[in-house]
Amino acid sequence: MNIAVAQSGGPTSAINASLAGVYLEAVESGKFNKIYGSLNGIEGIIKQKLINLSDYLKNPEDIDLLIHTPSTVLGSCRYKIPEENADEVYQKILRCFRKYDIGVFFYIGGNDSMDTVMKLSEYFEKNNINDIKVIGVPKTIDNDLCGTDHSPGFGSASKYVNATVQEIARDSRVYSVDSVTIIEIMGRHAGWLTASTCCLRANGETAPHFIYLPEVPFNVDKFVEDVKRVQKEHKAVIVAVSEGVKLENSHQYRSGKTDAFGHQYLSGIGKYLENIVSDNLKCKVRSVELNVMQRCSSHIASGTDLDESVEIGRCAVKTALAGNTGCMMCYIRDSSEPYSIHIESIPVSQTANHEKYFPKEWINSEGNNISDEAIKYFLPLIQGEVQQKMKNGMPVHFVIE
Amino acid sequence: MNIAVAQSGGPTSAINASLAGVYLEAVESGKFNKIYGSLNGIEGIIKQKLINLSDYLKNPEDIDLLIHTPSTVLGSCRYKIPEENADEVYQKILRCFRKYDIGVFFYIGGNDSMDTVMKLSEYFEKNNINDIKVIGVPKTIDNDLCGTDHSPGFGSASKYVNATVQEIARDSRVYSVDSVTIIEIMGRHAGWLTASTCCLRANGETAPHFIYLPEVPFNVDKFVEDVKRVQKEHKAVIVAVSEGVKLENSHQYRSGKTDAFGHQYLSGIGKYLENIVSDNLKCKVRSVELNVMQRCSSHIASGTDLDESVEIGRCAVKTALAGNTGCMMCYIRDSSEPYSIHIESIPVSQTANHEKYFPKEWINSEGNNISDEAIKYFLPLIQGEVQQKMKNGMPVHFVIE
Repeated sequence: MNIAVAQSGGPTSAINASLAGVYLEAVESGKFNKIYGSLNGIEGIIKQKLINLSDYLKNPEDIDLLIHTPSTVLGSCRYKIPEENADEVYQKILRCFRKYDIGVFFYIGGNDSMDTVMKLSEYFEKNNINDIKVIGVPKTIDNDLCGTDHSPGFGSASKYVNATVQEIARDSRVYSVDSVTIIEIMGRHAGWLTASTCCLRANGETAPHFIYLPEVPFNVDKFVEDVKRVQKEHKAVIVAVSEGVKLENSHQYRSGKTDAFGHQYLSGIGKYLENIVSDNLKCKVRSVELNVMQRCSSHIASGTDLDESVEIGRCAVKTALAGNTGCMMCYIRDSSEPYSIHIESIPVSQTANHEKYFPKEWINSEGNNISDEAIKYFLPLIQGEVQQKMKNGMPVHFVIE
Repeated sequence: MNIAVAQSGGPTSAINASLAGVYLEAVESGKFNKIYGSLNGIEGIIKQKLINLSDYLKNPEDIDLLIHTPSTVLGSCRYKIPEENADEVYQKILRCFRKYDIGVFFYIGGNDSMDTVMKLSEYFEKNNINDIKVIGVPKTIDNDLCGTDHSPGFGSASKYVNATVQEIARDSRVYSVDSVTIIEIMGRHAGWLTASTCCLRANGETAPHFIYLPEVPFNVDKFVEDVKRVQKEHKAVIVAVSEGVKLENSHQYRSGKTDAFGHQYLSGIGKYLENIVSDNLKCKVRSVELNVMQRCSSHIASGTDLDESVEIGRCAVKTALAGNTGCMMCYIRDSSEPYSIHIESIPVSQTANHEKYFPKEWINSEGNNISDEAIKYFLPLIQGEVQQKMKNGMPVHFVIE
């Protein structure tokens, strides 16, 4: 029997670590002949574009490079199994699985990928196909997957964002004039990544002075008053804002474009607020979009995140070998101080198509900052430095070509 | 006799390393009583805002933190000595120097700061004030200072930009659809930093597929044709473009704002080209602005850059002790393979108010890429990894408050 593994959704710095975990455990278990990688997520299964991973992962050095390479070495997709004509798609998938004798399909991805895991496993159950298991391995920098304490990839994104916000704070304070710097951070509906910048307080940093999340309606007038007030105390005001904050009155900064899932492409809240501040406060103002760097800056990945991401991939294999299907792997936190987790699986139906929002009780009453309780949750996730292999002064990545 | 040191212009990841170099050499020389830091560049001299650096730099650990802290711990300014009423300013500066018994003033900065070094030293010479020396220590991520092989701060910015462009390349290749990613890199008139992304070729990376500099007039139609052509070969096209490229026909993307020196604030060439591609090529397109991160990401500074920046600060003190004034310190490259430099001083008049452009002979005939010769120039500057002190998973910075 063989297995297949695929990666889907937006890149992270840890999604290849989970691929490495699946590969290592599958090899070490001795239970499988071939370990296939599907190119571009489930699309690679549908189109029968599979590669034999052992042709590429030849030694421990390859595995180490893979773990420290950002983004998805197998490619990704944003394909969603359609409601109509779904049977045709399932048939294609099944045909591929039968042709390649695939007994387990591991899908590393976010919410949309878990939807695929759920639908596929339900289809197999309905049709009494009991010899193919489907296991979901979570990943998202948004940290918005239900059922898991946190998501693989989030810790690395948060570590990058914290280091970078701190560096921007240093940069913004050099001149003697008042300034406002608005840092736009990813997060369409859930503000976890933006909220995590509260970690800087653990090191005595005052920035960011305000943190705005999609979970709280955003009032522009209140925002201007917030900034005006804190300017009396801090000449360089730093604002962390989620790309997805919802303006109470208008939505004119949205681009209007949508992706294959009907998600609206968001961009420009930073630039929008820059203009608002510029018009109202007459001071130096700048907006900074952390853009794709926050999801692919593996050079400052979290060691904890990468270690856990390998481990959750390994546990996915163990879970399949124990006879499970239609489930997603989860981190369960046993303790924050000292930090300790274990890994379990839950039925994927409990997580697919749900979103975990940042807890209201960790947002202050004014809706513009985050409580110290949240710091205890976030801090363990950004611990640990990684050593990338360097060549000519630049990180070396693992590439499948 | 005492000395004073100040920092000026835009932040870099290495400007504090030069401050550390000046401080260390001054202490070790045993020739000076007090080493003052002037807050916010020359403004701190004019307003007599000085601090005694030994009150803050108490042990080797402080020095080590200082070297690895981005931006200017003493603050910065964009003050230019005016043509009119200059005498009044010189009098204020002289009053401060006399009051604090300052025999040498070290000014760490870019082109505008070297203008100050030149004017001050000329004023002192004209007025037979021979007991105050003025020495310039270069810094700029733009690498556009004349007389020096390269500028402190440039190597760290280049290392960040190369690592980040590579990560963005990984990120951009995950989907099976055609895409164009435009990366906007700092450089108003000189394209050194953007050009340096050719280093990635040394590691076999194909990105960036095009590199556009301010040194070559930018033709939008040619750009669209360039991208269209290379799309047949690479589904994810990566373009590195200097913020200051000069459009052959129009300038409508410029913000129109100017700073105290009359420099036009540039922003938006990336977004401008994103829209051009979107209108003409009907593919996925994204623009990424590396913004202030490219000048303050000390977490991925170049070890070579930091070491050299300390050393050039040290040499500035030696140069002053040898009786020199009105000069700027320079790196002279003795060899690229193996890499070797030494440090000299040149009359600041040879460098102030001049700009060193990227050599035409290292730009290809089409004006859209960089020759391999340039790689030999750039590579040594981005070598060497740094170890920042970490606390709670985040870098620790040295802060004067």
